[in-house]
Amino acid sequence: MHNWLLPEYIEDVLPAEAARLESYRRQLLDLFRVHGYQYVMPPMMEYVESLLTGTGHDLDIATFKVVDQLTGRLMGLRADTTPQAARIDAHMLNHAGVSRLCYAGTVLRTKPDGLARTREPLQLGAELYGHAGIASDIEVQRLMVKALQLLGMQTLFVDLSHAAIFASLSHTAQLGLPQEQALQAALQAKDISLVEQLVVNLPEKSRQAFIALAQLNGGIEVLDQAREVLPDSEEIEQALLELEAVAKALGDRNVTVTIDLSELRGYHYHSGIVFAAYAKGYAGPIALGGRYDEVGAAFGRARPATGFSLDLRGALLALGPATMDKGILAPATQDADLVALIETLRAQGQVVVEALPDAQVDYSELACDRLLQKVDGRWQVVAV
Amino acid sequence: MHNWLLPEYIEDVLPAEAARLESYRRQLLDLFRVHGYQYVMPPMMEYVESLLTGTGHDLDIATFKVVDQLTGRLMGLRADTTPQAARIDAHMLNHAGVSRLCYAGTVLRTKPDGLARTREPLQLGAELYGHAGIASDIEVQRLMVKALQLLGMQTLFVDLSHAAIFASLSHTAQLGLPQEQALQAALQAKDISLVEQLVVNLPEKSRQAFIALAQLNGGIEVLDQAREVLPDSEEIEQALLELEAVAKALGDRNVTVTIDLSELRGYHYHSGIVFAAYAKGYAGPIALGGRYDEVGAAFGRARPATGFSLDLRGALLALGPATMDKGILAPATQDADLVALIETLRAQGQVVVEALPDAQVDYSELACDRLLQKVDGRWQVVAV
Repeated sequence: MHNWLLPEYIEDVLPAEAARLESYRRQLLDLFRVHGYQYVMPPMMEYVESLLTGTGHDLDIATFKVVDQLTGRLMGLRADTTPQAARIDAHMLNHAGVSRLCYAGTVLRTKPDGLARTREPLQLGAELYGHAGIASDIEVQRLMVKALQLLGMQTLFVDLSHAAIFASLSHTAQLGLPQEQALQAALQAKDISLVEQLVVNLPEKSRQAFIALAQLNGGIEVLDQAREVLPDSEEIEQALLELEAVAKALGDRNVTVTIDLSELRGYHYHSGIVFAAYAKGYAGPIALGGRYDEVGAAFGRARPATGFSLDLRGALLALGPATMDKGILAPATQDADLVALIETLRAQGQVVVEALPDAQVDYSELACDRLLQKVDGRWQVVAV
Repeated sequence: MHNWLLPEYIEDVLPAEAARLESYRRQLLDLFRVHGYQYVMPPMMEYVESLLTGTGHDLDIATFKVVDQLTGRLMGLRADTTPQAARIDAHMLNHAGVSRLCYAGTVLRTKPDGLARTREPLQLGAELYGHAGIASDIEVQRLMVKALQLLGMQTLFVDLSHAAIFASLSHTAQLGLPQEQALQAALQAKDISLVEQLVVNLPEKSRQAFIALAQLNGGIEVLDQAREVLPDSEEIEQALLELEAVAKALGDRNVTVTIDLSELRGYHYHSGIVFAAYAKGYAGPIALGGRYDEVGAAFGRARPATGFSLDLRGALLALGPATMDKGILAPATQDADLVALIETLRAQGQVVVEALPDAQVDYSELACDRLLQKVDGRWQVVAV
């Protein structure tokens, strides 16, 4: 057994890729900042009660647990930063009005997940608290689109759904929790024959509605179809109006909007519009988000909330191998003119590597393609 | 029990402080970059064998462990990034010549540690591999000094020691491992009466040398005293010459150099010059480092190595409370001129928060001190 082998789905990020990741991390955080999203750094670990309350079973099994040696209580390593941001909004900031927060950090999962098939995604996200109208849904989705365009993804697809539609149908049909969960999973998996099986004993109207839901996906014309085939209900009508408004607002931005009303990812967590962004050349969603007005309730203070997050490691996978910026090698002398020039170049952002005495020089290993040389009595940067 | 209470010594970093931390994080990584230190991102967790081999018992007990559900093997959450960087140098990069690496990330410790009394330091560091001469010790210490000056610490003290001196004395006295460890701990604690007790049965020359070592701390004149009182030995002479050269090289930089030959922090890990940097107004060391040529051996490839690291959270503690940069509030209208102006301001790095319909406006909560207003038919930024 080799000591240096890493666990499966755990990886080092080496220099060229790390530099690219860091550059995009900064650009995304700067994008969030100029839109008023304030950067916060929740901890890597918390007591499981605060990390997992109200978030559902999936997050629980994805979360590594350790015992706190100071108290004997169980702590979890965060598998998602969103509930932490909700906790900060609810109890650390305590705003009466709107808060906008963003974050960027490692999350850990017991099993590989997402685009990058990793157990250590680099999760960046932005969340908006304290506003229940669709203007905030539109704001966070536009921000997501800008973020993905910043990553070079010009051809984007945003898939919309709405948690209230399934909730309304489920309420009308008086489903018990196990039945609701089974149906949710079948719809999520687009397993229509299983959906048909699960609803076979429901009242005819509910039965037809669930089967219709499984097939309500496509362009925004789906919203009109939904109005025809789904039962009359204030919640459903309101949800379809919200989806329509958001679809129109995003359509302005050269983004293809699709609708998939059977998309119920994180259903127990979300309460309104949910969305996923896809890009050409990627197999899965690049960014995910939605409205989750009820999560803060677990901390004793329910606040309207909507936001999105993405795994930056996964998002960069399709960009191909990164290349290093090359630097300048300086000889190992303490000549005052040279020292001053080195500091000037560095202040300009140039990489200057100082050669060490008795060390072999390998320009490739040192990532240098120029050197400092005395030419005509003056130190100058020359190509290798 | 409140769900939102965090474990002891685990904290959120809220917006103003997080913005300052992020700004310094970038400045430090940029400083490392222009000096040729390449950014790497080792994982948060590894198998304990790779994380802890050759690093000693202290790191083991500081490390949280979890079971890998995919293999049943034990994984550790990193409590120190240095051994990970050494692993990357040894096996991922595989350079024959010099490598320079840097990193910035959370480490987790089972018990609070360091300046910030935290279990979640934000560890930044720089490491230089593949060069055994003191030129590389000097390079990393100068880089550390620049890093601390960048953090605004102008009055610096660098305390130097050398692992080879105690090692040589211990070898001459033929100490067994338990005795060596006890003596190391006593010297480290400056417990002279305990040192006297532990060496009472040693040959007179060794006995006197260890007692002298406990008192060899002060200015660089200590090096001359050491030459007088310590036994003649090639290793000790060489160590004192190295300390003298490094002390002189750092003295150029308006840094007060002190010597403490009984400083044996991380003795089993270090192999040459070790150092700690202190600043006015801080109770403990801000940055720590040293030479650890043998760590790579645990991964089958010993390489000369020296470097330093610091906890950025702890380092910022003495700076006092951070303040937020204030933004500009834009009204909730879709006026095309306004939208264009908002994007222009954001492209200039200004924070522009868009008001949401039906949301109360609290300039303090939104961190805005200006607003966009139509004045004489033109949108303009005006003070609140």
